[in-house]
Amino acid sequence: MSGVLRVGVLGASGFAGAELMRLLGGHPSFELVFAAARSQAGTLVAELYPNLAGRYPGLRLSAVDDLPADLDVVFSALPHGVSQALIGDMSARLVVDLASDFRFDDPDVYPAWYGSAHQVPERLGDFAFGLVELFREELASAKAVAVPGCYVTAAALTMAPLISSGVAAATGIVVDAASGVSGAGRDPKPGTTFAAMSENFTAYGLLDHRHTPEIEMALGRHGGTDVQVLFTPHLLPASRGILATCYLRPTGEETSDELLDVMATMYKAEPFIHVTEDVPATKSTLGSNSVHVTVRRDQRTGWIVAIGALDNLVKGAAGHAIQGANVALGLEETAGLPIAGMYP
Amino acid sequence: MSGVLRVGVLGASGFAGAELMRLLGGHPSFELVFAAARSQAGTLVAELYPNLAGRYPGLRLSAVDDLPADLDVVFSALPHGVSQALIGDMSARLVVDLASDFRFDDPDVYPAWYGSAHQVPERLGDFAFGLVELFREELASAKAVAVPGCYVTAAALTMAPLISSGVAAATGIVVDAASGVSGAGRDPKPGTTFAAMSENFTAYGLLDHRHTPEIEMALGRHGGTDVQVLFTPHLLPASRGILATCYLRPTGEETSDELLDVMATMYKAEPFIHVTEDVPATKSTLGSNSVHVTVRRDQRTGWIVAIGALDNLVKGAAGHAIQGANVALGLEETAGLPIAGMYP
Amino acid sequence: MSGVLRVGVLGASGFAGAELMRLLGGHPSFELVFAAARSQAGTLVAELYPNLAGRYPGLRLSAVDDLPADLDVVFSALPHGVSQALIGDMSARLVVDLASDFRFDDPDVYPAWYGSAHQVPERLGDFAFGLVELFREELASAKAVAVPGCYVTAAALTMAPLISSGVAAATGIVVDAASGVSGAGRDPKPGTTFAAMSENFTAYGLLDHRHTPEIEMALGRHGGTDVQVLFTPHLLPASRGILATCYLRPTGEETSDELLDVMATMYKAEPFIHVTEDVPATKSTLGSNSVHVTVRRDQRTGWIVAIGALDNLVKGAAGHAIQGANVALGLEETAGLPIAGMYP
Amino acid sequence: MSGVLRVGVLGASGFAGAELMRLLGGHPSFELVFAAARSQAGTLVAELYPNLAGRYPGLRLSAVDDLPADLDVVFSALPHGVSQALIGDMSARLVVDLASDFRFDDPDVYPAWYGSAHQVPERLGDFAFGLVELFREELASAKAVAVPGCYVTAAALTMAPLISSGVAAATGIVVDAASGVSGAGRDPKPGTTFAAMSENFTAYGLLDHRHTPEIEMALGRHGGTDVQVLFTPHLLPASRGILATCYLRPTGEETSDELLDVMATMYKAEPFIHVTEDVPATKSTLGSNSVHVTVRRDQRTGWIVAIGALDNLVKGAAGHAIQGANVALGLEETAGLPIAGMYP
Repeated sequence: MSGVLRVGVLGASGFAGAELMRLLGGHPSFELVFAAARSQAGTLVAELYPNLAGRYPGLRLSAVDDLPADLDVVFSALPHGVSQALIGDMSARLVVDLASDFRFDDPDVYPAWYGSAHQVPERLGDFAFGLVELFREELASAKAVAVPGCYVTAAALTMAPLISSGVAAATGIVVDAASGVSGAGRDPKPGTTFAAMSENFTAYGLLDHRHTPEIEMALGRHGGTDVQVLFTPHLLPASRGILATCYLRPTGEETSDELLDVMATMYKAEPFIHVTEDVPATKSTLGSNSVHVTVRRDQRTGWIVAIGALDNLVKGAAGHAIQGANVALGLEETAGLPIAGMYP
Repeated sequence: MSGVLRVGVLGASGFAGAELMRLLGGHPSFELVFAAARSQAGTLVAELYPNLAGRYPGLRLSAVDDLPADLDVVFSALPHGVSQALIGDMSARLVVDLASDFRFDDPDVYPAWYGSAHQVPERLGDFAFGLVELFREELASAKAVAVPGCYVTAAALTMAPLISSGVAAATGIVVDAASGVSGAGRDPKPGTTFAAMSENFTAYGLLDHRHTPEIEMALGRHGGTDVQVLFTPHLLPASRGILATCYLRPTGEETSDELLDVMATMYKAEPFIHVTEDVPATKSTLGSNSVHVTVRRDQRTGWIVAIGALDNLVKGAAGHAIQGANVALGLEETAGLPIAGMYP
Repeated sequence: MSGVLRVGVLGASGFAGAELMRLLGGHPSFELVFAAARSQAGTLVAELYPNLAGRYPGLRLSAVDDLPADLDVVFSALPHGVSQALIGDMSARLVVDLASDFRFDDPDVYPAWYGSAHQVPERLGDFAFGLVELFREELASAKAVAVPGCYVTAAALTMAPLISSGVAAATGIVVDAASGVSGAGRDPKPGTTFAAMSENFTAYGLLDHRHTPEIEMALGRHGGTDVQVLFTPHLLPASRGILATCYLRPTGEETSDELLDVMATMYKAEPFIHVTEDVPATKSTLGSNSVHVTVRRDQRTGWIVAIGALDNLVKGAAGHAIQGANVALGLEETAGLPIAGMYP
Repeated sequence: MSGVLRVGVLGASGFAGAELMRLLGGHPSFELVFAAARSQAGTLVAELYPNLAGRYPGLRLSAVDDLPADLDVVFSALPHGVSQALIGDMSARLVVDLASDFRFDDPDVYPAWYGSAHQVPERLGDFAFGLVELFREELASAKAVAVPGCYVTAAALTMAPLISSGVAAATGIVVDAASGVSGAGRDPKPGTTFAAMSENFTAYGLLDHRHTPEIEMALGRHGGTDVQVLFTPHLLPASRGILATCYLRPTGEETSDELLDVMATMYKAEPFIHVTEDVPATKSTLGSNSVHVTVRRDQRTGWIVAIGALDNLVKGAAGHAIQGANVALGLEETAGLPIAGMYP
């Protein structure tokens, strides 16, 4: 495929939208020609995000309704519920949605976990689930991609080799994860001020976080089995980063080394997945599209502990979206995506 | 009991030692008359800890060997292994050891988890285990107290009501916890620099952290049953604070509200334990001797999730030590110990 | 003076109000019997500030209008402009205002720096300026105290010995200071989220920060001369702490040691001021009412550099307010006020 | 110029070395073929810097002495003093030194500010001073480049337009700056642990920081005048970022807007300098090679306040080094260098 593609970003005022603009600015085949937001139309991108001032000095946010008809690719980082209503108007060759609106084939998930029925359930089947390493084949011919949730990508990539290979049981799983606050979005809230978060650590969304059914769906579809997970997210005093510590029951006698081999075998050709004996740390992945994973077997208690780390705004959102677009468009999968993280 | 007691602190150059000095400075019945460290003898406390400059302007660290014979109370914050060798020389009316040297009655724990045999196993029985809320009676007449590990206090106080009452099973438990870095001590290490830790989150001590057998011992002794726990500690980008998120299997049908009642009933007279429907946050406890706990039952997956928060240097170390000394000496249990945390 | 005094706090939902409640909880002569806020009336203090849950388990915020008539002491941490309107209704024996409403004798400061005329200029003279170390005599008989701004206390205590003694010129001064974000209050704003502040440092309020005329007034009144200062505040990625780095021109030939002597001489009897050869660090003062100061003379360029550190919520607000009340009421000046900071 | 150049990095175990490797990994004309360190020879880069694991999976650190003779470009991030001794052995077409060893033409600076005489003063003239925006012409034909200190780049780019144009006086200047801790290097020290730095802010290097003569030299050479600066660095609780707040005396009557015009005119063609009316914030520049600058004139006190922000490891070190190499080699000046920062 040749030529530069004209790209638009919806939801450009949020953190995922801004990260899309940052990464698109270094992509060899994409040119950002349109950026829109629901509430900041008219504002200079450089004013809202001074980090982008040198890259997009004159770009202003448009209204979402002014989406041009002739874009090649549209990335939508609008909140859940909004892209459902807009999807009919999107005529681009490829639509990539970062919200949860089109992640599930089963429309019943929406009233159960999101509190209201889906508005266009007939369109759910049009979207490929964009967890690239697990569903690359489905993405190759996709016209629309639903990018997974940040925790979903972390937990599913950490556990998929263990569940799909059958060395770990698919139920009785505990996922204890922590995220930097950028996952909560840009709008200031009492719980996300620096004063509230610095030197603080707490859990939230106990028992009913919306990424729960998505983790179960992703692992279940990949492994061909029903998966059940208890998921407990925590809020880190950090801007970025997700660490998922996953507890599973073994089905056989595999040792830590053998479990690491299972991971390494499945991911040996993956450019963005680093299987390591060391314990992954979120900071090693920041700014990159990489995921670091490891696993251990505790002979004493019988638990398997699998741990994965990523940057929630890159591999957990904007980077993963671009990776999915690269695959769907037949571009080099790694185009425009950093493998190396920024440290320290 | 009347009169002011003469108190010494060993290991005064470390964070727990410094916190002991800070808290002792506000205790109505204790007067700090001696502070010693192994490697900083001769240094002004005010130079090493400028936060204490106004309170102890002329106090210098002594050598540990110069411990006076006439102290009423000795607090030792020396590292594991050191107090074993010193214990014969301590003639104080009360000895409070913050290390792990005298926490276990069973000497076999030491070679198995600490890598070497105990030097004075015959003295293990002399120490009461200072987890005050669980073993207050034993402390009342103690001449020596072994203060529990920071994670142990957090995990055991979070789960004790559930296990001792029988509403949760004593095995199959997962404790996923995170601590601020002061728990790793004052000495600089590559992994504890600001550059390494800021914006970072990682696990450590996978499968074999030394607080594992201590959590099992504390809960087992209190509940009168064998307890088995998989414990995974994480390192937070924070100076202080521990959050323990504990996963247990229910034995019956108790709901979240009924489990909260179990907690509230057991702790209703405790000045330092706050049972809450809200999710505990470490920041609410910083600087205080308080513990905040909650619990939930997930009907979907069958797990109980219990969460506890505390300040690892206060309730997790120096504050708990003073609380134990207060009980052992027949003083007001809350003397010198803040109930309110410093926020933000 | 004997007996416990009945105390009320207005503006109890903000950070300074919460810090007043925390410190009052440990004060031997004060009993908090009333806490009010403008917008959170009816809320449990324990819900808004879980750190206070164990200390004030049942206390609810009242409406400001319900201020009882029989209080001995009222501390007001309401925002600028509000206490002007309320002052007529305050019948307490002592009123301590933490806002800027009564800090200036000169009513012209208000339209010039605060944007509107003072509502009760005739009451300005009733308030003593509560910078205790500089104006202790005026406070001794005060019925009303205006607590200085946080930056004002830091800058004025750092420079007062140099200006009042005449070793430094009173004009041409630059004050470059930085504050933790709690100084900006509890309400979430786009610039005070964790995501915006972590790993960030910036200046604000260039040229026209309202603490400018107050620094000039405090130093001028104490030194008996006209003072002119350019003040540039910065926002730190920290919850608490102010560091003021002050640049002054010498009038004579005093060396660094001689300048330190000038400081040490003036402050030798002050319980809360620590003059040190080391460079003050905010972290050494957190949670305490202490100020750490130092000074240097650069022979090469001729500048004097004086540096001071304090906790903006304690010595910069709530602690200083209580210190002023202690003096005004004839109590022990240090009552209820920590000298030692919490570290780390 | 065509073809890929073979590049080596000395001092690859430090933060600047690691940042060089990260940036070189995305440079279209450079291929990293050699990385060496003095103390970690034999270690996998991926082990020391897991963030680079996916980019350089098999690269091991060599000994500095094993520097190949056939490299096109050598970047040295070795500490001050080391490259002086090595320079004779470097046969590469271009040598770029990030230390201070070759920044000054005047050998007398070294004994005065660095404590010992230069070992090869006759080589000082071989190095161009790599502050690209101020000395681009000198760099165009350079065979060796001395990259400026991080504070120097920040302060000099912030003030150069004002001094060279004559609107500000060249003496009586105060530079009050703050840096993230990565500037202090990777080795753990008591003052750079997370526990010591979190929630802390302090000054260091009072009066005699080594970047002082370099700021004066850079501005003096560019402006053709003698410059005198008092420089006070501070240590931020942040990994990266420098903010320089500079105070100068005006020579004429220029207003804030006119001063901004002076800046904008000088920098109008610069890809990495963003002149803004807003106050620069370090976070807007992190990960990028950009500098954000602004200026104000205070009519009341007569001071000019100029403020600049950058990432100390990119524009303050590794990025600036690559920018200088690009210019010296006739490559596109922006090649391999991000203009957009990573936010949040």
